[in-house]
Amino acid sequence: MSEPDIFYILGNKVRRDLLSHLTCTECYFSLLSNKVNVSSTAVSKHLKIMEREGIIKSYEKEGTFIGPTRKYYQITFSRTYIATVTPNLFWYKGLDLHEAPEKLGKYNINLEELKLSHDNLTDMIIDFIGSNEQLSRILDALKDIESYRNWLIEEIKDIYLKEIGDMTQLAILHHLLLYNEATVDNLSDILNLKEREVLKKAEELNKFVPLIIKDGVIKIDEEALKKKSQ
Amino acid sequence: MSEPDIFYILGNKVRRDLLSHLTCTECYFSLLSNKVNVSSTAVSKHLKIMEREGIIKSYEKEGTFIGPTRKYYQITFSRTYIATVTPNLFWYKGLDLHEAPEKLGKYNINLEELKLSHDNLTDMIIDFIGSNEQLSRILDALKDIESYRNWLIEEIKDIYLKEIGDMTQLAILHHLLLYNEATVDNLSDILNLKEREVLKKAEELNKFVPLIIKDGVIKIDEEALKKKSQ
Repeated sequence: MSEPDIFYILGNKVRRDLLSHLTCTECYFSLLSNKVNVSSTAVSKHLKIMEREGIIKSYEKEGTFIGPTRKYYQITFSRTYIATVTPNLFWYKGLDLHEAPEKLGKYNINLEELKLSHDNLTDMIIDFIGSNEQLSRILDALKDIESYRNWLIEEIKDIYLKEIGDMTQLAILHHLLLYNEATVDNLSDILNLKEREVLKKAEELNKFVPLIIKDGVIKIDEEALKKKSQ
Repeated sequence: MSEPDIFYILGNKVRRDLLSHLTCTECYFSLLSNKVNVSSTAVSKHLKIMEREGIIKSYEKEGTFIGPTRKYYQITFSRTYIATVTPNLFWYKGLDLHEAPEKLGKYNINLEELKLSHDNLTDMIIDFIGSNEQLSRILDALKDIESYRNWLIEEIKDIYLKEIGDMTQLAILHHLLLYNEATVDNLSDILNLKEREVLKKAEELNKFVPLIIKDGVIKIDEEALKKKSQ
């Protein structure tokens, strides 16, 4: 899928919400439909658009217990997109992420070498070409780190589901990992749960991943986490 | 302007083409309208959408020679957007670029410290938090380099227009700086010129910025440029 198509897809709030849900748990239609505040007809339309554009695919799978097979959805590719818009610059690019982060690099990005004043057009152009090379190395680093984060969060999802098995706890953990902290109100909106249900699930998650839950804000307790690791 | 709005704007080819033209020269309506392959009604509609969303603004200015005042357009902000979409990760962010690059940093981004295998959930989460910190530093570097490139290309545009004053040569230079090289065919499409006109303008540009023009491909002659600077 090309960059422009993804911008079209991202330009709609319902589609962004659906993509967000698809990344944290296994999703079938009625589950997705419950999480967003639009009709199931609208959800169906947006899922069809994303399937047509090759962003997601659906597959049939039997439910956990006896019951009919369900249609599940998942995102089909792994990319990071960059776009710069200024009065003088406009460009965009998509980076294909690595499947698994085989080797992670070391990047010394020294922007101090770039001059802030130039005598003539020739020197300006030389420095612009130099800054393009720095940009290219920064994008390599971005591709590496996003490949790593994608791989690691998949490992975390797998181990959490295998060992603990609670989708809602995992969704809270997923959110905390991505955004460092979350309010109970926000999680309640995102997960379509009551506040007290969010707090109950956070308390359960807290048994496995130390959290700080205070004044309606939840975050990972990094100090306790490091102690636990020793 | 928030990130989602920009994705909506970027999700349309005509709007992307218009933004691209707006970044390389001063543009009034009929000039913009000539550069894209849609009706002037459609151009007008897209410009209105972008003005409404606060991406561009219009201003009246007298033409270079005697004549009526013209409506010019320009992009109103300077931002870099990042979005990652994978089966396990979905996030996006907009970075406000600096006005002028006051100080440029030095970034040692060492991703080798991140482990590729983990014994337990706790260690995975510690490393994920570590990778978030690395990502944050990579985004700081990206913001710095894009601020610098934005500032420097504006300087280049200013000096080129003041000293040489040819908009078409500048548009070719602008393209070469952003994409390293360009085919004559591609420039002919982008600038809405015949191929021989592109070649003529490239030959003129070549007097001020050394180019390699060969087999329908144009690029900046970096070696000649460095020699010229000494």
